Amino acid sequence: MSVKNLNELFVHTLKDVYYAERQLLKALPKMARKARSSPLRQLFEEHEAETREQIERLKQVFQLAGERAGGETCPAIEGILEEADELMDEIDDADTLDAAMIGAAQAAEHYEIARYGTLVAWAESLGMQEAVDVLRRTLAEEKDADAKLTRLAEDQLNERAR
Amino acid sequence: MSVKNLNELFVHTLKDVYYAERQLLKALPKMARKARSSPLRQLFEEHEAETREQIERLKQVFQLAGERAGGETCPAIEGILEEADELMDEIDDADTLDAAMIGAAQAAEHYEIARYGTLVAWAESLGMQEAVDVLRRTLAEEKDADAKLTRLAEDQLNERAR
Repeated sequence: MSVKNLNELFVHTLKDVYYAERQLLKALPKMARKARSSPLRQLFEEHEAETREQIERLKQVFQLAGERAGGETCPAIEGILEEADELMDEIDDADTLDAAMIGAAQAAEHYEIARYGTLVAWAESLGMQEAVDVLRRTLAEEKDADAKLTRLAEDQLNERAR
Repeated sequence: MSVKNLNELFVHTLKDVYYAERQLLKALPKMARKARSSPLRQLFEEHEAETREQIERLKQVFQLAGERAGGETCPAIEGILEEADELMDEIDDADTLDAAMIGAAQAAEHYEIARYGTLVAWAESLGMQEAVDVLRRTLAEEKDADAKLTRLAEDQLNERAR
């Protein structure tokens, strides 16, 4: 890796997020399968479909930047998903596992919120208005997914407390 | 690792965040040293002091949970900081490096925002009101640090665009 200017940093980070989304796409079916509560399973399934669209949008942004779509290993998402995987294998109790998966999914969402937020700011500075619009759509979806996970967690924890 | 219920999941995640904060505390001085803009350097220095307090607060929460403070390797923060480190070593241009470090710091902040948000919800469900209050203080600080980084990024990018 060698990054000389903001444009190259933008493309580098785009590759990082592209890799992250593809890893997440692989992880979501296992998370859906392991979810005990059906709203959580449904949310993971919906987010799998959303993630496919987000990957298509990233391809568009690569094109707008005049680059071939490609990934670059992203140790951050690997760490986040490694933690999720450990928890899925180690927890037997269904409610505890659902709570752990919601937490892990929110860590992944927040990673993406940070990354897309940064990409939007850089695209703006680089004068890439079309890329800004495309990336903003995904950023809004990630924030929405995070908010849905918070609501699910609250419902689950309230029910547990009753 | 073996996690049987929400209480054990809470303690497990507390250890994960404790480890993450300590790793961040080690990383911040290098980030401050590498920052070219003085507001960014100052922000990293301030956040180092804040992180020390946050670690003390985590020790309080361990105590409230009747557990000894201790860390558990957190691959997520290791991945986030590994990416930051690579960028710091690979980028020569000062403005580009500052932009990259702001982005990396926001990824770290968002990881912590996700984790503390989850810990607050679980502490509430476990009826640990004092822990909720302590964790909420840190959560507010992390959100504030993220907002300050966003403002710095905007200022830097606007200046660059002029």
